[in-house]
Parts: sequence; structure tokens; C-alpha cells
Amino acid sequence: MRPLHAALLATAVAAAAPAAAESIAIREIGSFHVGGRTATIEGLANREITFTAGAPPLRINPNGDFQVEQMYVQYVKLADPRARVPLLMWHGGGLTGATWETTPDGRPGWQMYFLRQGHDVYVSDAVERGRSGWARFPEIFAGEPVFRTLGEGWGLFRVGPADGWNADPGQRRAFPDTQFPVAAWNQFGKQSVPRWVTTDAQIQRAYDALVQQACPCVIMMHSQGANFGFNAALAAPDKVRAIIAVEPSGAPDPSRAEAARVKGIPHLVVWGDHIAGNPFWERLRGNIERWQVAIREAGGVADTLDLPARNIRGNSHMLMMDLNSDQVASLVQDWIAAKGLMR
Amino acid sequence: MRPLHAALLATAVAAAAPAAAESIAIREIGSFHVGGRTATIEGLANREITFTAGAPPLRINPNGDFQVEQMYVQYVKLADPRARVPLLMWHGGGLTGATWETTPDGRPGWQMYFLRQGHDVYVSDAVERGRSGWARFPEIFAGEPVFRTLGEGWGLFRVGPADGWNADPGQRRAFPDTQFPVAAWNQFGKQSVPRWVTTDAQIQRAYDALVQQACPCVIMMHSQGANFGFNAALAAPDKVRAIIAVEPSGAPDPSRAEAARVKGIPHLVVWGDHIAGNPFWERLRGNIERWQVAIREAGGVADTLDLPARNIRGNSHMLMMDLNSDQVASLVQDWIAAKGLMR
Repeated sequence: MRPLHAALLATAVAAAAPAAAESIAIREIGSFHVGGRTATIEGLANREITFTAGAPPLRINPNGDFQVEQMYVQYVKLADPRARVPLLMWHGGGLTGATWETTPDGRPGWQMYFLRQGHDVYVSDAVERGRSGWARFPEIFAGEPVFRTLGEGWGLFRVGPADGWNADPGQRRAFPDTQFPVAAWNQFGKQSVPRWVTTDAQIQRAYDALVQQACPCVIMMHSQGANFGFNAALAAPDKVRAIIAVEPSGAPDPSRAEAARVKGIPHLVVWGDHIAGNPFWERLRGNIERWQVAIREAGGVADTLDLPARNIRGNSHMLMMDLNSDQVASLVQDWIAAKGLMR
Repeated sequence: MRPLHAALLATAVAAAAPAAAESIAIREIGSFHVGGRTATIEGLANREITFTAGAPPLRINPNGDFQVEQMYVQYVKLADPRARVPLLMWHGGGLTGATWETTPDGRPGWQMYFLRQGHDVYVSDAVERGRSGWARFPEIFAGEPVFRTLGEGWGLFRVGPADGWNADPGQRRAFPDTQFPVAAWNQFGKQSVPRWVTTDAQIQRAYDALVQQACPCVIMMHSQGANFGFNAALAAPDKVRAIIAVEPSGAPDPSRAEAARVKGIPHLVVWGDHIAGNPFWERLRGNIERWQVAIREAGGVADTLDLPARNIRGNSHMLMMDLNSDQVASLVQDWIAAKGLMR
């Protein structure tokens, strides 16, 4: 019976993931930069620089007008989208839009997943990250950038206990049930970029400008990106059709923000595993839940997709990269469809 | 006869650009990081940082192991490519892969053009640019980054005379025949990113790693990217099917590099306008021509597409963004096809 079993299994696998083999019809792939301003620097000394081997040196005056604080946005528009409005994907701190692309172990990421489900997808890089570029500091950006070590995320992103980190990949201790593809951890580390902690206002301005340009839309945000999305919805409630906060790290303070402004926008918050007993994440989650309560008390919808409560175990903070990333995406897609956002 | 003329004209326009309205069938959009290494920093003091408004401060040890010098590569794979091998697009200095995407005035860029022609396209960000991320300096990268002013490129990229630059867009003097979409100059400025001038070796290593991973291929390089492409071909001549250097700013020194190694790889060099009489660009072009002569003397092919010599006038250094960008791309595509690289 073995050969028959194997054949049946192969058929079942093929049937479970037919979309992955099919092509998708694209109308346009493109990008733009949104927002930003011109900043002037004065009083710095001239420098002589050779830009390319073999090229003559150029005398460069570092003073002048600089374009700063813009944001890069890449879009993929389908020939025939089934979603009513585009899906904007905003990444978390110390990362770029690459978060949503191929997973570190080489599987299609959430950008492809939601394209296949029929969404036009806009993936952006926050101000001062990735293709958005960054400005001279301390002249334009206050303070200095922060660089994430290869090991910092191991505990912070709940792949394993913080003391489970080891520079030697063979000596790292992950949670036994982790869904993160731990063998690809160093590859994931290549996605890290420096970030400032003084640029929230500039980042928010650029996101708000994007909403004015690209919406009506659904906004999906991860980690640090979530607070910008919650605020973008407060700033332009007529432009946002839904908010999906994936492992959010911050939310508006209900005592200062008017939750009633977003009562017409369904909110979904998605949580992975190993939050219980982690004081840092329990505190973050408490902040988010206070904002959800405020939305509900104002008459709005603020749902929670708590994966462990559904017996889906081991998801990390980077759940769009986890081994069950398609399963989690499908639950999010179900929620989007249930809100009437698909044709 | 006017209505008939208008109808005929409309038909002619539609026939001339049918592809722009058609969808393309995509197998996968994705990305990866290639190359890089782990670097260790020691001896810096701890810092306490609040990463997200509302989140508790974290005590950060800036020392540790960092993933550095990797390169970001995004690919679009067609369902049915007509090109025999993928097309790799390498940008120039102070920019990112956005160079090849939508033009600053919103027209489809060369990424879309060559996708429509049937190429799988890989667009990368050089090490320390864009989504490749950058490392702490001076601990890991020597020296400090260089920031391009909004006006520097006006003369350097031959949109107008250097003294034609003015902070006031209404007061800028371009060459009368310029093809650059001058009203979108500040939008183009948003694509600028800082760059180091001390990282050529690191950038070359990542490009060489990309060639090993993604090729056989055709490599199209712009400006500073060209020298990396010429060298990548020298390092892996069995992997490269053609080299297309768009406004290259540097080339190997024929007295030190073995041109015979690349005699089997057809080379094309593309030049825009307003080089004659510009000492800086005449000198760069002389370096390139010496390398082309060396390739030819070794028995290879090193063609030149000199646009003004074909009476195509006014192209800038950023000719993939110029108003006639599709026309220039079509000449490059003709060359690719003539070399037998399409099915």
C-alpha cells in the first residue's frame, strides 16, 4: 500500500497549494517617493572625493539644499484585482519593506500571498530606512542611528529565550515549538537596517502623505509600523477601510486620542505565541488592548486574532516569515473577506 | 478630413504602444540578500532607548556581532520569459535600484520595459545603499558617508550647465534639448541615498556573489555600477552572457586587467548627449574607450550606442528616466536580440 499512499499524499499536497504554481496577471510594477522636504545645511568645509576608481577627484561642497524625509513606496497592481481597495504593508523597526517579501528561508512571503488573493499591494520603506534614504546627522536627524545586533532579535522577537542566543548557530536554543525558520536566522539578519529613534514625527508625516495619495486602502502594519497606522487612521478616517496590526508594539493613548474617529474602521490585531510570562510583551499588549477597548467603547470593531488561543502554537514576532506564514495569512484574508472588502 | 485624421492618429498611437496596456504574466516576485559577513564590535558603552512611543525603554548594548555588507536583490520572474537568461540591473552611485523603476515623472521605467520584452529582471541595491542596509562607521565602514545636494546632479548628470542650477525650480537653466523631465527634478532628488567612497571592495564581493547565485545572465549597469559589472564579468566570464554599460563612469585599467578573459562576452556601452566639451565626462569616456579597445584587440565585441551620433539628442546621464527612455531601451533591446539572447 505504500506507493498508493505516497501518490495520494502527493495529490493532496498539490491540491492544497494550487495557487503557488499559477501565474498572476500584473498591470504594472512601479514605485514612487512621497512626502519629504528640502533642508539646508551651511558652514561645513569642502571635501575632495574620488567617486569611482579611475575617475578624477571631484571637489565637493557638502553644504546646500538636500531632499530629506521622503518615503519609498513600491506597488504591484494586478490586471484584475479582487480586493475593493489596495493593501498597504508597513514594516517594523530596524527593517524595510523586505519584511513582506520572500521569507529568509526562501518561501514566498505575504506580499506574494496577498497578491495571489487579489490585492493590489503597496510595500513601503519608512523614512530613513531602505530606499527612502537617510539624512545627515546630527544636522538634520537628531541623535545617532541604532544598529541591531544579530542576536538581539532572538529573544525580543520571541524565537527563543533571550539567553538562548549564541553566536554559534549550532548552540542556539529556540522555543521547542517555534515556527520561525531558525536555520535562516543569519539570513534574516541581513534584512536589518539602522534606524533612528528620534524620527517618529517625520515617519508619520510621510505615511499620512501616502494615505492621501494611495488610499482608500487597507493598511497592514507590523511592530513599530503599527502605531503609525493607528495614527494614520485617526488622521484620515475617510481614507482607511481596515487596519490590520500584526504584532503591534505601540498604539495611541486612549486618554489623548479620540477613538470615536475610527469607529467606522474595522481593526484586527494579530498576536503570535510566547507573550504570556514575557513582561516586555505583556506590557506592550496591554497598551494595544487599551486602544482596542477604546475603539469598542466608541462603537467600533477591534478584533483580535490570538493564534495560541486558536491552538496555533509557536509563532514568533516575525510571523509573516514563520513556517506557517501562509496559514496565518489565510486567517487574515478570511477576516478581510468577512469585512466585505473583496469583490 | 480632420475627424478622420484624428481617428487614424489614434489608431497609430495605439499600434505603436500596445504593450503598455497589456498585462504581463508573473510567476513570482521576491527578494533575497546575498553575500556579507558577520562583524564584531567591542568596547562601546551601553545605551537606554525607547523604541516606540508608549513602549518601555530597553537597555541596549551596542557591542556584539552584526550582519554587514550584504546586498539586497529583488526579482520578478515571468511565467514565460522570452529572454534566454535573466537581466540583472545595477544602479549608479548615490542611488538605489529605484533608478530602474517608475521615472520621476511617473512613466513606467526600464524594469517594466524589459519585463514587457520578456526578461526576468533582478534589481539590486549596492552594499550600504537602500535595502542592503549599512554598517556602523568608522568601526566597520572606513570614512564617512557622502550626501548629494539637490543641485549637484544638475550639471554632473548633464541635464543643464552646472551654473544653470537654482534652488528655485523656475530659475533653473537646462540644456534646451534636454530629454530629462526637468519639472520632476526634485522628485528625482528623493531617490538619492548617502553612499561611502571606501566600500568598492565590499560592493564588488556582493556583486560577484550575486553572479554566482543568479547567473548565467545579462548584466546592465549604470554609472558607478558599470565598473562593478566589468569586473564581475572578468571574475566569472562563464556566467555572463552580455554586458550593457549605460553611461559608465569607470572601467578596468587595460594595463592591469586581462581583457582576453571577457572576449566571449559581447559588451555594449550607451552614451547620452552633452559629453563633448565637458572635460570631466570626456575623461571618463576615454577610460571606457580604452577598455573597449582592449576587449576588441583581444578578439571580443565592445559596441557603442552613441545616441547623438544617431541624431538622438539631449539625453542626460539618467537616460532611463529621460522622456525618450522607451526609445533608448528599444535600441538596447534590439542589440540584445541581435546577440541571440532572446528565444
